[in-house]
Amino acid sequence: MAESNQMVGLTTQRIVSLTDGVFAIAMTLLVLNLELPSPSDGITVTKLHQLLADQYYYFFDYALSFMLLGLYWIVHHQQFHYIRRTDRHHIWINIFILMFIALIPFSTSLIGEFSFDWVADVFFGGNLFILGGLFYINWDYATRDRRLVDKDLDPDKVALGKRRTLVTPVVALVAMAMAIAHVTYSSWVYLLIPLILSRKWFRQ
Amino acid sequence: MAESNQMVGLTTQRIVSLTDGVFAIAMTLLVLNLELPSPSDGITVTKLHQLLADQYYYFFDYALSFMLLGLYWIVHHQQFHYIRRTDRHHIWINIFILMFIALIPFSTSLIGEFSFDWVADVFFGGNLFILGGLFYINWDYATRDRRLVDKDLDPDKVALGKRRTLVTPVVALVAMAMAIAHVTYSSWVYLLIPLILSRKWFRQ
Amino acid sequence: MAESNQMVGLTTQRIVSLTDGVFAIAMTLLVLNLELPSPSDGITVTKLHQLLADQYYYFFDYALSFMLLGLYWIVHHQQFHYIRRTDRHHIWINIFILMFIALIPFSTSLIGEFSFDWVADVFFGGNLFILGGLFYINWDYATRDRRLVDKDLDPDKVALGKRRTLVTPVVALVAMAMAIAHVTYSSWVYLLIPLILSRKWFRQ
Amino acid sequence: MAESNQMVGLTTQRIVSLTDGVFAIAMTLLVLNLELPSPSDGITVTKLHQLLADQYYYFFDYALSFMLLGLYWIVHHQQFHYIRRTDRHHIWINIFILMFIALIPFSTSLIGEFSFDWVADVFFGGNLFILGGLFYINWDYATRDRRLVDKDLDPDKVALGKRRTLVTPVVALVAMAMAIAHVTYSSWVYLLIPLILSRKWFRQ
Repeated sequence: MAESNQMVGLTTQRIVSLTDGVFAIAMTLLVLNLELPSPSDGITVTKLHQLLADQYYYFFDYALSFMLLGLYWIVHHQQFHYIRRTDRHHIWINIFILMFIALIPFSTSLIGEFSFDWVADVFFGGNLFILGGLFYINWDYATRDRRLVDKDLDPDKVALGKRRTLVTPVVALVAMAMAIAHVTYSSWVYLLIPLILSRKWFRQ
Repeated sequence: MAESNQMVGLTTQRIVSLTDGVFAIAMTLLVLNLELPSPSDGITVTKLHQLLADQYYYFFDYALSFMLLGLYWIVHHQQFHYIRRTDRHHIWINIFILMFIALIPFSTSLIGEFSFDWVADVFFGGNLFILGGLFYINWDYATRDRRLVDKDLDPDKVALGKRRTLVTPVVALVAMAMAIAHVTYSSWVYLLIPLILSRKWFRQ
Repeated sequence: MAESNQMVGLTTQRIVSLTDGVFAIAMTLLVLNLELPSPSDGITVTKLHQLLADQYYYFFDYALSFMLLGLYWIVHHQQFHYIRRTDRHHIWINIFILMFIALIPFSTSLIGEFSFDWVADVFFGGNLFILGGLFYINWDYATRDRRLVDKDLDPDKVALGKRRTLVTPVVALVAMAMAIAHVTYSSWVYLLIPLILSRKWFRQ
Repeated sequence: MAESNQMVGLTTQRIVSLTDGVFAIAMTLLVLNLELPSPSDGITVTKLHQLLADQYYYFFDYALSFMLLGLYWIVHHQQFHYIRRTDRHHIWINIFILMFIALIPFSTSLIGEFSFDWVADVFFGGNLFILGGLFYINWDYATRDRRLVDKDLDPDKVALGKRRTLVTPVVALVAMAMAIAHVTYSSWVYLLIPLILSRKWFRQ
């Protein structure tokens, strides 16, 4: 069975290289959300400092999404540090991971443009939740029966990897619940993620 | 003849690296098609959930094109697993492949924006058909007389590669025919491709 | 002197990797020029096939610029096949090369949007002319006194590299002259480049 | 302590590869700022040469930002030539570096669109100042007690690296002061950076 799922010519090295590309582009595309109303749009522009100040939350969103992408990039590399092989199912899990990484700039634009609408926060949280879930599935699939990792991989490391991967989806659930309860600034909750991950119990 | 077509300094490694870049960018640019009408456009916005629901097919198209690009990325790596060298003609086949990969985000935007017009579906299908055809040519050129592959490459593997490569163009032809016959949702047909490729006869 | 121009930590490998990235992105960004007037812009849209037919030259420009970028990408790799080291001046030549590669999507958008204005053709030709000139300088600088190449590099190969590199700027000059003389479709001239480069005298 | 900050699976190679991607994309996205008012926007277009001439400073800004990104790219590679390992804090310094590299196209668009407003120049200068500061922190963190570099790294090289890294933030401060004092063309000051760095005292 494991045999029959193997695919010729696909290595983890190729997946890592494609994934690094998608991360780099998604990170850099975030900047396109910072578009200001420009003088050439015929708007009666006040002062630039006013425009920038009015849109401070775009900058917060930019920094937040950049950090979250950074976090997932770290998770990705930590998982692939142990993953030695790939197979048919594993590749498709990873293509779905890329699909939701590439969606982050869009989700970020929603929480910027529709900051007054809780649906935007739920969409953003949902993106992160699914992404986290896919990373969990990626790790679980690879380590179950040591399918794609070394036979003698320490069970503690498998468990630690799962714990770490669950942090973001759990925080995303909390943020979505807060958004539905109309708590403003619910996305500040995501700043807890790096703090939680630096606790000893989650450290790798 | 084969000798005189060889080019100094171009390796398959370089082609693979450029191609990975183009795939990563084309995948990530798909997200730019998800642009929503924004409050700052002066539109009297209803609720965001309404806007998102109205444009559900953009999300379907995003996922579909992402998967199709993923499929072609796998095909590319499987072909280059066996291809050892390159030459003048082979490089240009590959530059044309890149040209039609980079066109996918545009073709996808057409089926989103002009979802009511069958010409969009034909354009999208045509893009996939040509891309599949070019992959077929790429493989045929490389393996004919074992031009760019190992001398002792198994003929069964050559034939399997051709079979696999023909699946997408054939399905694209079916989808185009359905679009011309005004069948709505003709692009759902593309979801058959991964199913077909996972059949034993097409497995690599 | 040569000694004092050397820079710590910069290798040709790094330049090649950055350059591949810029080529991949510039190629893929070309597709953004294919934007059609969309129904959501409030335009009374005729049929899509009409829109596509009206803008056929956008597709020609897309294919043309893609091929020209492909050509330059080949030139780059052929030069760096022989270049072993880099230094302070050489790096800056290469950063200027990147600057004019990244400009190609803009120049291409000009010949699309202002197809009726010969200034656009001159701008596009000028971009290619400068790019070709920089590649010539890159090769001349690297090979003069065998500065950055092997000491025993065949002089014939140096001369061949120069000949090949001059083809594009010369054709660009012809195209610019034709544009100034108000010849329509002057950019078709660029299609000669691959033909010329495949002549025996220019083959590498 | 140093031990407990180490992270599994993250190597400097991975950071360099992600960073090269972000640099390549940020450089190429600069071209999106060159958007001209197009005939299809319904503007009564004069001649293209007029439009281009009116917007000459966009081209200056494009070249300037491209060169500054090139400079930082060189700094990055020179630092990572010596940096052998990474750890938890070091990775986050580098993710913040990426955040401010990816911001450069936006800052550049501000000095283009709001060329009449000194706030734009201060924003652009601030971006460069913070980026330079982060590179200084990156180098200081890595070399303090030879944390992430070879134990026997020459102290002169550590000091030289600091001197070089401080050039851009200092020039950025000068440019910001000039902008606040309403000096026009304050951004020309940045052209001093390559000159200063080529002085013997700053050469590496």
